[in-house]
Amino acid sequence: MPEASSDIGLIGLAVMGQNLALNIADHGFKISVFNRTTSKMEEFVAKHPNTPGGLEGCPTLEEFVASLKRPRKIVILVQAGRATDAVIDGLIPLLDADDIIIDGGNAYWMDTIRREKDLADKGLRFIGSGVSGGEEGARFGPSLMPGGKLSAYEELKPIWEAVAAKVDAETGKPLEGAAPGKPVEGGVPCTAYIGENGAGHYVKMVHNGIEYGDMQMICEAYDLMKNLLGLSAPEMAEIFKKWDDGLLDSFLVEITAEVLAQKDPATGKDFVDIVLDTAGQKGTGKWTSISALDMGVPSPTIAEAVFARCVSAIKEERVAASEILKGPGKKYDGDKDELIQAIHDALYCSKICSYAQGFQLMRAAEGEYNWTLNFGEIAQIWRGGCIIRAGFLQKITDAFDGNPDLANLLLDPYFTKTVTQLEASWRKVVATAVEYGVPVPCFGSALFYFDGYRSARLPQNLLQSQRDFFGAHTYERTDTPRGKFFHIDWPDPARPQLDA
Amino acid sequence: MPEASSDIGLIGLAVMGQNLALNIADHGFKISVFNRTTSKMEEFVAKHPNTPGGLEGCPTLEEFVASLKRPRKIVILVQAGRATDAVIDGLIPLLDADDIIIDGGNAYWMDTIRREKDLADKGLRFIGSGVSGGEEGARFGPSLMPGGKLSAYEELKPIWEAVAAKVDAETGKPLEGAAPGKPVEGGVPCTAYIGENGAGHYVKMVHNGIEYGDMQMICEAYDLMKNLLGLSAPEMAEIFKKWDDGLLDSFLVEITAEVLAQKDPATGKDFVDIVLDTAGQKGTGKWTSISALDMGVPSPTIAEAVFARCVSAIKEERVAASEILKGPGKKYDGDKDELIQAIHDALYCSKICSYAQGFQLMRAAEGEYNWTLNFGEIAQIWRGGCIIRAGFLQKITDAFDGNPDLANLLLDPYFTKTVTQLEASWRKVVATAVEYGVPVPCFGSALFYFDGYRSARLPQNLLQSQRDFFGAHTYERTDTPRGKFFHIDWPDPARPQLDA
Repeated sequence: MPEASSDIGLIGLAVMGQNLALNIADHGFKISVFNRTTSKMEEFVAKHPNTPGGLEGCPTLEEFVASLKRPRKIVILVQAGRATDAVIDGLIPLLDADDIIIDGGNAYWMDTIRREKDLADKGLRFIGSGVSGGEEGARFGPSLMPGGKLSAYEELKPIWEAVAAKVDAETGKPLEGAAPGKPVEGGVPCTAYIGENGAGHYVKMVHNGIEYGDMQMICEAYDLMKNLLGLSAPEMAEIFKKWDDGLLDSFLVEITAEVLAQKDPATGKDFVDIVLDTAGQKGTGKWTSISALDMGVPSPTIAEAVFARCVSAIKEERVAASEILKGPGKKYDGDKDELIQAIHDALYCSKICSYAQGFQLMRAAEGEYNWTLNFGEIAQIWRGGCIIRAGFLQKITDAFDGNPDLANLLLDPYFTKTVTQLEASWRKVVATAVEYGVPVPCFGSALFYFDGYRSARLPQNLLQSQRDFFGAHTYERTDTPRGKFFHIDWPDPARPQLDA
Repeated sequence: MPEASSDIGLIGLAVMGQNLALNIADHGFKISVFNRTTSKMEEFVAKHPNTPGGLEGCPTLEEFVASLKRPRKIVILVQAGRATDAVIDGLIPLLDADDIIIDGGNAYWMDTIRREKDLADKGLRFIGSGVSGGEEGARFGPSLMPGGKLSAYEELKPIWEAVAAKVDAETGKPLEGAAPGKPVEGGVPCTAYIGENGAGHYVKMVHNGIEYGDMQMICEAYDLMKNLLGLSAPEMAEIFKKWDDGLLDSFLVEITAEVLAQKDPATGKDFVDIVLDTAGQKGTGKWTSISALDMGVPSPTIAEAVFARCVSAIKEERVAASEILKGPGKKYDGDKDELIQAIHDALYCSKICSYAQGFQLMRAAEGEYNWTLNFGEIAQIWRGGCIIRAGFLQKITDAFDGNPDLANLLLDPYFTKTVTQLEASWRKVVATAVEYGVPVPCFGSALFYFDGYRSARLPQNLLQSQRDFFGAHTYERTDTPRGKFFHIDWPDPARPQLDA
């Protein structure tokens, strides 16, 4: 058995696991690695003989566990669901009291709540940590969202803060430039303790839901420029590049510019033009929407983003339908630069509404699961490392720092002012899309959310009246205090009064 | 112990249970009734001494079971969930092989699947039957959607067909005019065997999801007329009454006219104006949306209807927000009659899309749960009795009768033609709502669904490119057959190439 000399261990050497292990080793921590298929582990360790901390390859789980300093810290990066449970079950008999298992996968937060409880009952500690940033984030600095017992996180904290992405303390901008063996020095780490049991995975899920919204909204901007203005991919690359220098400064806008500028290696054509228009999904956007529905929190924009991917998936059906169902077929003849600017504004306003929904959702979850969440800090740790990193997140941190009880992001003075200024352009873009037949489910849904939220009076008085009519569901009145319910005996001329 | 002389029994004498029992007795069936609180049962039976079939009140479950002819048929109408399980558990030891329990509540279809299996293992039969039509439907003719073993339904069929709503065989229009003791004679019953285990409750759930959409869309039409044209409730009552004579002929439009014409008994004001604008919900719309998300079937319009109720619920927050977030504040000065007609058209087109989504969902569920559903027949049994009954359903029956494999309702010639004719008005209404700041989440979402569905090329090529960029999620190409996945090594000027 090896000496217990590793600071941490990691199980699961797919790309994310390999990259996170290298990131940890780059920061001087010795890390043991284990993989179900031993050859993959051996290959990986052989390929990286000189990391600052050192990789220790372990062919068996017993050797792996024996190689770790106590309390042991074991990161699992395997497929969410049964594979995670199987790894945990394999570890339990080998561990000692107070050892810590850290699940870095995209776990369903209710699974994390269950696992944390089960392991606590066995005297073990469990952290469910969201890891965002894709392969590159894992390698050079992800955004990390750990949930579990605070005491457990305190043990992990030095490593988690070291490997997390860093942002500039003054500007909040990501510090880039890490290279293998040469991590970024200084800066504020993009990680913080999120809350008890499943809180970290819940927040990571909402991050992903927001990411679905961001990506769909960028697609809608692209679709409008392509279909109404006939812009080419390289022309749009320039526009997104410019946008990345302004209010929309973000990783996703930055890579959109890169994607649009990319040529297809096989044909030399613009890359996006040869990519099939069907988007996959892995479930976190769906979970976010389901959680919103379950708690009754309006998050329509994220749900529309999920459904937009579903529509994209039925490609053959759409191609057939396009032969039968015709749109307006009009050619846009408005001012080009004005429309581009308006699309920019619509994207920013829609983004604000989508984030407002995401933060409302986390606030509801806080109550539902008895967590204490720090929304300003959550926005802060999303400023670097993760897929939705954006300058804009600093504004959200400022908003919650200014008012931790802020009811809705839209009510923060900066966001109120911004949306009010850009609202006319936003309306113009959605109306234009409607007129010309370009689908903008997220731009539109965000606007309807905004218009609904700012309505003192909505038409649901009629809806509740209908419910009282056919189901005796009762109604509240405008002239009595809330919480008093009324019902009237609806006459129906078609038949005698019910006697029930 | 009583003699086994009742044709059927019913447990749960809340309003729905009482009304369904009276409906059954009206058709000459002798029915035993049981209620947990015996006094409620006694009161009910005493109040209705002379029904054609006769009510037999049973103070204990043992006497209730003993009073039923075999195989026993027992309808449960208690709260969905635990109450249903408790009643079933209480019945099991008292029943004999092949007895049939019929759950008429709004059960979650997965519960119905579980219950059917559990009872089958015990030699008992179980039917989960959707019952729609509210209190009045239960009393004079509901739409009934039974699922379970066909052999079990065959036993129930004479009663279910007798008590169901009836429509005219030629026109498909509901036959009305039933009164206590005097059921409608003749006509086609609004019930049919739906499919195995949970199929009936699933279809009922989708019915309710569609109902959410219908109600919200009527609210949007009302909101537009109220806010843009300043019409009063009685003026709108006249408009809905007129609409009920045309394409929009339906129960919900009919009762909307009645609700809008209603005066408040307390103040004499227009009733809707004193009703608070917050709508409740009982979960079936949410379940429908969650099922859609789970199966990846685009049903955004139903989801938007659910979220619209959630926005309506946060009344105090909206009132506060309305002071801060300002809309365009423009006064509409277009032609009034033209806008009213366009709103009518928008409502019809949106309704078609919402139903198209509901039927897609049922088609996906058919595959998911291994059912065989008859979509034409489902539309047929919704023509009378239920809340969404509408002349329009005959068109859906015709569509599926003409082509049982119809991929989407929008591709049926009647619907294609109708939407094509009304499309311009629909776009005008949504664009106008956007311009004037009236939220139309369902009208808009339906239109974006339409525009997405008829797009041979959507912008998800960009989205999938982004996913390949940051997560190596791969992409398909337009110039290779489906099912081949590619990935390119994305260069990132900011840092060296990853070697993982």
